[in-house]
Amino acid sequence: MAGNSFGKLFKLTTFGESHGTAIGGIIDGCPAGIKLDFDAIKNDMNRRKPGQSKIVTQRKEPDSVDFFSGIFEGITTGTPIGFVINNTNQKSKDYSHIKDVYRPSHADYTYDKKYGVRDYRGGGRSSARETACRVVAGAIAKQMLNHIKINAYTSAVGAIQLETSYEDLDFNLIESNPVRCPDSAAAKAMIERIAEVKKKGDTIGGVVTCVIQNVPPGLGEPVFDKLHAELGKAMLSINAVKGFEYGSGFKGAQMLGSDHNDRFNKDGSTQTNLSGGVQGGISNGMDIYFNVAFKPVATTLQKQETINASGEVVEMQGKGRHDPCVVPRAVPIVEAMAALVMADFTLLRRQETKDW
Amino acid sequence: MAGNSFGKLFKLTTFGESHGTAIGGIIDGCPAGIKLDFDAIKNDMNRRKPGQSKIVTQRKEPDSVDFFSGIFEGITTGTPIGFVINNTNQKSKDYSHIKDVYRPSHADYTYDKKYGVRDYRGGGRSSARETACRVVAGAIAKQMLNHIKINAYTSAVGAIQLETSYEDLDFNLIESNPVRCPDSAAAKAMIERIAEVKKKGDTIGGVVTCVIQNVPPGLGEPVFDKLHAELGKAMLSINAVKGFEYGSGFKGAQMLGSDHNDRFNKDGSTQTNLSGGVQGGISNGMDIYFNVAFKPVATTLQKQETINASGEVVEMQGKGRHDPCVVPRAVPIVEAMAALVMADFTLLRRQETKDW
Amino acid sequence: MAGNSFGKLFKLTTFGESHGTAIGGIIDGCPAGIKLDFDAIKNDMNRRKPGQSKIVTQRKEPDSVDFFSGIFEGITTGTPIGFVINNTNQKSKDYSHIKDVYRPSHADYTYDKKYGVRDYRGGGRSSARETACRVVAGAIAKQMLNHIKINAYTSAVGAIQLETSYEDLDFNLIESNPVRCPDSAAAKAMIERIAEVKKKGDTIGGVVTCVIQNVPPGLGEPVFDKLHAELGKAMLSINAVKGFEYGSGFKGAQMLGSDHNDRFNKDGSTQTNLSGGVQGGISNGMDIYFNVAFKPVATTLQKQETINASGEVVEMQGKGRHDPCVVPRAVPIVEAMAALVMADFTLLRRQETKDW
Amino acid sequence: MAGNSFGKLFKLTTFGESHGTAIGGIIDGCPAGIKLDFDAIKNDMNRRKPGQSKIVTQRKEPDSVDFFSGIFEGITTGTPIGFVINNTNQKSKDYSHIKDVYRPSHADYTYDKKYGVRDYRGGGRSSARETACRVVAGAIAKQMLNHIKINAYTSAVGAIQLETSYEDLDFNLIESNPVRCPDSAAAKAMIERIAEVKKKGDTIGGVVTCVIQNVPPGLGEPVFDKLHAELGKAMLSINAVKGFEYGSGFKGAQMLGSDHNDRFNKDGSTQTNLSGGVQGGISNGMDIYFNVAFKPVATTLQKQETINASGEVVEMQGKGRHDPCVVPRAVPIVEAMAALVMADFTLLRRQETKDW
Repeated sequence: MAGNSFGKLFKLTTFGESHGTAIGGIIDGCPAGIKLDFDAIKNDMNRRKPGQSKIVTQRKEPDSVDFFSGIFEGITTGTPIGFVINNTNQKSKDYSHIKDVYRPSHADYTYDKKYGVRDYRGGGRSSARETACRVVAGAIAKQMLNHIKINAYTSAVGAIQLETSYEDLDFNLIESNPVRCPDSAAAKAMIERIAEVKKKGDTIGGVVTCVIQNVPPGLGEPVFDKLHAELGKAMLSINAVKGFEYGSGFKGAQMLGSDHNDRFNKDGSTQTNLSGGVQGGISNGMDIYFNVAFKPVATTLQKQETINASGEVVEMQGKGRHDPCVVPRAVPIVEAMAALVMADFTLLRRQETKDW
Repeated sequence: MAGNSFGKLFKLTTFGESHGTAIGGIIDGCPAGIKLDFDAIKNDMNRRKPGQSKIVTQRKEPDSVDFFSGIFEGITTGTPIGFVINNTNQKSKDYSHIKDVYRPSHADYTYDKKYGVRDYRGGGRSSARETACRVVAGAIAKQMLNHIKINAYTSAVGAIQLETSYEDLDFNLIESNPVRCPDSAAAKAMIERIAEVKKKGDTIGGVVTCVIQNVPPGLGEPVFDKLHAELGKAMLSINAVKGFEYGSGFKGAQMLGSDHNDRFNKDGSTQTNLSGGVQGGISNGMDIYFNVAFKPVATTLQKQETINASGEVVEMQGKGRHDPCVVPRAVPIVEAMAALVMADFTLLRRQETKDW
Repeated sequence: MAGNSFGKLFKLTTFGESHGTAIGGIIDGCPAGIKLDFDAIKNDMNRRKPGQSKIVTQRKEPDSVDFFSGIFEGITTGTPIGFVINNTNQKSKDYSHIKDVYRPSHADYTYDKKYGVRDYRGGGRSSARETACRVVAGAIAKQMLNHIKINAYTSAVGAIQLETSYEDLDFNLIESNPVRCPDSAAAKAMIERIAEVKKKGDTIGGVVTCVIQNVPPGLGEPVFDKLHAELGKAMLSINAVKGFEYGSGFKGAQMLGSDHNDRFNKDGSTQTNLSGGVQGGISNGMDIYFNVAFKPVATTLQKQETINASGEVVEMQGKGRHDPCVVPRAVPIVEAMAALVMADFTLLRRQETKDW
Repeated sequence: MAGNSFGKLFKLTTFGESHGTAIGGIIDGCPAGIKLDFDAIKNDMNRRKPGQSKIVTQRKEPDSVDFFSGIFEGITTGTPIGFVINNTNQKSKDYSHIKDVYRPSHADYTYDKKYGVRDYRGGGRSSARETACRVVAGAIAKQMLNHIKINAYTSAVGAIQLETSYEDLDFNLIESNPVRCPDSAAAKAMIERIAEVKKKGDTIGGVVTCVIQNVPPGLGEPVFDKLHAELGKAMLSINAVKGFEYGSGFKGAQMLGSDHNDRFNKDGSTQTNLSGGVQGGISNGMDIYFNVAFKPVATTLQKQETINASGEVVEMQGKGRHDPCVVPRAVPIVEAMAALVMADFTLLRRQETKDW
């Protein structure tokens, strides 16, 4: 039902198809009095936008955002923030060849089954283009979260995995390379792997790791709206995501309780953090960290057989300019969704504090 | 905010602490006219309840549910279904020794930080006791989902992993052994492993796999309320869950697009199903399958150091009767949460169909 | 969709039919640390319960409430408060005669049309019995609202209307008579009128006025969730309510702007209060006051013709013990719903305050 | 919390200040496959827009709406419909004189108290300008409601009241005069009264009556989301509304049960309709009718004393072009909100029907 909103107190609702006039959204519930840093918003937009490096799609989209309301003299007023991003790069003709064709592992077929009608020009609503709106809202959420720090980075491209724990990484290096991996050796290997895959007209998957630091204890709601459950939903709502794990994650399922328990220090912090900063769905003040698995982009430039709306087998070949690997551009999207979740729980937390 | 409800159209709200008088809930939005099979509800309750086998806690709780409303002459009336499960087994004295103590990797500390006050007798609201209410609602949801079939089973206990794909398993064997693994050889190994761990007073993690079959296409909402995102949130809201993956999951992150894409058959089905039955957040009619990772139970019977509310280091040792491995009893809980998600999207789907 | 919940942050969900085993509810979102005054809750229950005076139904229901969770050692814990009120007075046989009969101006017909099945024993879910749960939650909400004072009273019974403005009334007199009118002369006339109507086996309508004082400025949400809009919905959700007006109300529609505007004093208060304490949907710190119109109870003890489920004309005559006028017992219900609205906006308000 | 959304399944979220760049909204949940009549949308916009007749504000605003998504080749796709209406007529200088001034009976003071910062140019978010977005969404909702007919009209301007029952009126005459009263004699008197008031620089209140016909039985949700309760909230959320009554309304509070009960005909219809088409919160198939009371516009052109943000008394005089009576332009807004409520309950109703 009306599934295009995210959050309860800090609430984003988005609209827009990849090849319509524009995409945009409304941020409802952003507190008043926040002096916005528009450069920071622009910077996150640039990290997500196409054409930023050789290893991502060469499509050109300025992705400039127009704010229509909720901001007066640079300061949020507490009223809804409406914004629009124009689609300047609608090469509809690029898509005419797939008008009736269901591209394998795309949402063409399911949208047709669900709605009976669809904007066949590209991904329409299912296109990752929609995530640009998430980045806008996330960038504003980050500015609301004074102290909480959110950093995401590429921790795997295909089989190339960064084994180093986040504690031993320098987050300042994330933006030092186009693949957004804070380890220069791993980054180099990942970039080469992507280049190789791209040359074959193929695509490859990967993993984004996200770390949330300086989190106050008490964020998250028992029992269904646990902090990590909302983070999981937020990440799984991003295009191409197939899995989510936090703290010890799937490895934790192989462990013994005697090894998995995090011992307390006297100040309430813990000596280990296999819990991943959350106990019983509520933040405990330790770092929150999680992994997000992305499948390879479904659009390859190789010939493949598929069917059309009439159930006829047709041959197709992806055209246009697509990402050989979605992960580098997904990093700011993961951060944005994490920021939306933390903003929502931060606002919610305020009504629980005892000092009436 | 009021995080004790799940679902939008088929909505469950629960209450209750592990050591209060009772737990219970309200199912709001269950359609009228469903003739309830109370034995089926009782059966799911029995699969979750303690004391059902040697490899789970020996605690005895009948877990009988009293329905107070929304059902007339055995048929649902469309009004809210209120139900209560009495806590017959409150051994409060078992817990007196941890009144001020924060048990490692439990929610004692975070609840204290969040609320400033808590029911210190056992897990209180954070206890898995609450999941009994989910099983009640899930059992009713299953009866609403005429055709959709939901089967969960234990696919891993610690390092013992069932490699067989779900397609090659006989779900009728799930209940043939106490660990709920439909492969007798693997089941035997898992049971032995749990017994071994139990003898040491330790605990161990594991994985539950769930398969949803006969799903009509069109369930799930773009863009934030994707079907797999809601399933992920549902599973991550279960106690002790650390990770969720569907379809190709984390393995998919290592694959190439040319290998990952699912080719269509003429009827719209696909030759492979790495997508896991969902495209763009909407069901495509293929089987939905996913894995849920559970950490080892935090309460071990071994001595461990921890702190109390005053920050003093104290030694504690778990008492009472706890599960050495939560996975066997988690199987019906995973099914219940899956049923709640499918019921919600099934009701929602009805308002989209074109035939006004 | 699942319309049995009220509120967003302070959220009440109720269940129960008039002739089921029990009714009850869950209060989710009540802050932790409130030391509950159970006598105050009992007192509000007694003000609503049947059999409390000669001018209300002589039905006897103790209406004692059992709390199952969310309260530990008399203090709220922040977890959901589950409660149940047993139906001790189910005279089902009283209702056997209307099994297939649609009583005029009752909900029998509409429930049948909506659900196709219903609990025909009395009003079922549509019975005002359900409001007992609202009074429980409202009594707890009142205790959360330290300073805000909520007083409702009977301002009209049929044509007998209390003309005195609330400012000239002594709210301490509200409970001094069974009709709950703080003006003894008017109260006397109202009581006589009700007795007269009762003798004829007839019923009569009336008006409840409610005044909310010591309200801080800033409560209420633009643009759809205006404070008075939520109050209006809350009141209109009470059985038998036909109208709601606040401040100048319908009289205001006849006025000139030059007469209607409230002049400011230097401190921001206003010299008049035709606005009724709300501007643009947000409280301005002045008293909030409103009127709620109740229709006459539909069940009269006079013979009347109606139809049954087969569309046959049948003669019926109300039996049992019904209220000749619902207004006296509605007073605490109006207060309860007002308290729920104010509690919700009070919690919400906290997340907006600037002092992060 | 994020109070700028209305509806659950057919959901409108709006943004925009009266003097920002633009206002707009997102309609989420509109079913796919509706061929939109854009002229009908334009027509409702024109009925609301300023400058349409002598008795409304002479401000000129084209109020043309741009749709950005959710519509493909003129047909709704089921994805969110994003739209924007540019503010072409921002005479900010007109408002410079009230930068720090709190206009009496406006929301300047309450927004300042709530948010601590506001767009002081005119009403900002509290301006009725926002209702243009409601009319856009309402016009689309009307097109979804094939059979249900919604007609609103002016039934009172100040003391001039139209006594004729809606059944004896010809709705085709509503648009035959600028005051939108389907009785030409009453219309003439109302227009003269408004002209008179306008000459004095004063304003006057009035009443809008709305009639919803061809409503199927079964719409509306027990117990809190009653059909008339949602209609009441919808109307009370419109600027300047002070009261709502449906069916017998406040008059019903003076009646006897023996007079108020609606007798059934054999087909389930009723001989009278004092209930106003709703029983127990659920539609019964009879006409739904209600009255909405509007206060006089707060901005008069007469000199008045007020205070500024520093609490100093200042003299002010409304400038610019304001409505002497809001009622004629409110008629399409009342219809729009009624349409949104009916659309929401119509979609919701679909998930209850028995034919699985």
